[in-house]
Amino acid sequence: MRASVLRDGRMVLRDDVPEPVPGPGQVLVGVTACGICGSDLHFAKHGEQMVRLTKEITGMPMAGGLPVDVAGDVFMGHEFSAEVLEAGPDTDAPPVGTAVTSLPVLLLPKGFEPILASNTTMGGYAERMLLSAPLLMPLPVGMDPRHAALVEPMAVGLHAVNKSAIQAGEEALVIGCGPIGIAIIAALRHRGVESIVAADYSGMRRELAMTMGAHRTVDAAQESPFDTAKPAVVFEAVGVPGIVNDVLRRAPMNTRVIVAGVCMEADTVMPLFGISKEISLQFVNAYDHNEFAESLRAIGEGEIDVAPLITGEVGLEAVGQAFDDLSEPDAHCKILVLP
Amino acid sequence: MRASVLRDGRMVLRDDVPEPVPGPGQVLVGVTACGICGSDLHFAKHGEQMVRLTKEITGMPMAGGLPVDVAGDVFMGHEFSAEVLEAGPDTDAPPVGTAVTSLPVLLLPKGFEPILASNTTMGGYAERMLLSAPLLMPLPVGMDPRHAALVEPMAVGLHAVNKSAIQAGEEALVIGCGPIGIAIIAALRHRGVESIVAADYSGMRRELAMTMGAHRTVDAAQESPFDTAKPAVVFEAVGVPGIVNDVLRRAPMNTRVIVAGVCMEADTVMPLFGISKEISLQFVNAYDHNEFAESLRAIGEGEIDVAPLITGEVGLEAVGQAFDDLSEPDAHCKILVLP
Repeated sequence: MRASVLRDGRMVLRDDVPEPVPGPGQVLVGVTACGICGSDLHFAKHGEQMVRLTKEITGMPMAGGLPVDVAGDVFMGHEFSAEVLEAGPDTDAPPVGTAVTSLPVLLLPKGFEPILASNTTMGGYAERMLLSAPLLMPLPVGMDPRHAALVEPMAVGLHAVNKSAIQAGEEALVIGCGPIGIAIIAALRHRGVESIVAADYSGMRRELAMTMGAHRTVDAAQESPFDTAKPAVVFEAVGVPGIVNDVLRRAPMNTRVIVAGVCMEADTVMPLFGISKEISLQFVNAYDHNEFAESLRAIGEGEIDVAPLITGEVGLEAVGQAFDDLSEPDAHCKILVLP
Repeated sequence: MRASVLRDGRMVLRDDVPEPVPGPGQVLVGVTACGICGSDLHFAKHGEQMVRLTKEITGMPMAGGLPVDVAGDVFMGHEFSAEVLEAGPDTDAPPVGTAVTSLPVLLLPKGFEPILASNTTMGGYAERMLLSAPLLMPLPVGMDPRHAALVEPMAVGLHAVNKSAIQAGEEALVIGCGPIGIAIIAALRHRGVESIVAADYSGMRRELAMTMGAHRTVDAAQESPFDTAKPAVVFEAVGVPGIVNDVLRRAPMNTRVIVAGVCMEADTVMPLFGISKEISLQFVNAYDHNEFAESLRAIGEGEIDVAPLITGEVGLEAVGQAFDDLSEPDAHCKILVLP
């Protein structure tokens, strides 16, 4: 079977990957589409550090799964849609041919394995993979399966917005219009927030922010968004050192800051900025089962149109090139792998 | 008139301070007692930096008042109780002799002046001072006026607890048992929180924490409080660099961290600790009018006994020595100045 795997920091095509065999409770699926996530790019560059940091924080391997050895081939791809091919023994599964998506988790007889970065558990950068029957969500009738690959990243945005408890009349500022920022903007608009300001250095990203629901954008190279916005809630979706402190320095009194950007390095802040204005920082991560299902419903029923986010489509042989292309912020938002 | 003033980093006694004259809406009071606050100690050491930082953050002098020149004499003392001596012209005030306290703010014909650190507005380290008639709060009958000097710092603790929205069944961990930590512990106990863990290096402070309502203490020199506590809410009441990151590293999933310690320096954190556990950080500052009034009521009616916090009493001539004594954490909690 063919799959694109991470080997020595590069995504390379293998055609000798053993065919996955579904166990009880598992289903073999054919991958229809799989989005490339920024965290995959990050893992390709800093996998060893991510494994080490995760172990330091949680005492466990990444996301609670099996240990990952970055010296070996690593399977990735957690934003996927697929088609049911074959159920495992004694497994209650949707009929063969059903279009599905799923939380990126594989249930095992003992515990579970995240479908994220693994030496053994196949992700979506492959022709076929295993999913867990109880976690399968069939796509609404008529839904484009490529759009279903966006359910996962859009659920990340929905979760960040839910954690903020923002009300329709409150102003939102989204700093950073990469895939996470864009998902937040779409979720804010879907919730009915009446003033959404989006800031980014990239003109292409600002344009996409408007398409997806921002009411106004700010070119971060030209001015600070706080020159003209007085947001109640700030969504930090950049994830590089210095951004949070700049928000603490410039944000108004009582601002709720949702830290959705994933800064992997140490960051320095002046607590006095936060204290004097009683700012709160809520760190957020991922989504829950209901948010994933709601994301699928909203996209599947056309309430959120994710088509503008898809800026490229490649086959398994071109995943490495796509990883390179995504490092250029003005070129792409989301590239789908179509195995 | 006699007053203790900050001059060249030291509190010194002056006996030539001009007698304050109450204007319209103001009242001349005789100071009964005034607590020494950690922020006064900090201003004595780092006043210039505090003035500069405040200006950088808010674009205004400290607490929105008049500019402060640390090269000149500075009046301080914002935790006071007093006795009404004389009302200004056309001023509706309680009768002469009434025991009162007040928010530490002096209303002026144009705006207001915080009673905090000022070259012109007298604080509580003086025989007499001016207060604003509309802000005066008479003490409940029979209340010890020395205890009323604790209303302000206890309101700081009450505010931190209110911002946390902690419920009775949730475990609270208070890190640092200086006056702010102790005020938080008292407010938690008053609210009915059933599990309050307090951590400090000082044995005297841990003992006081138990007296004021902690259910259990941890010697921070011997172990991390997170070895045995799984708090829903952590109150950081130390205010030195590194504490917040240690909390992010060790706290359980979804912990709400209330940052009540006033760290005046840059602080470095690993955002990934917060992200992976969806921790929130709420910076808090001071209190509002209702919290101040509630603090007065709870102390005045004996619901919170602040007597154990008072570990020393000095006259105006010994304020400098008291500032020195307070830098030793095992010697004192609160020293009252009795002019």
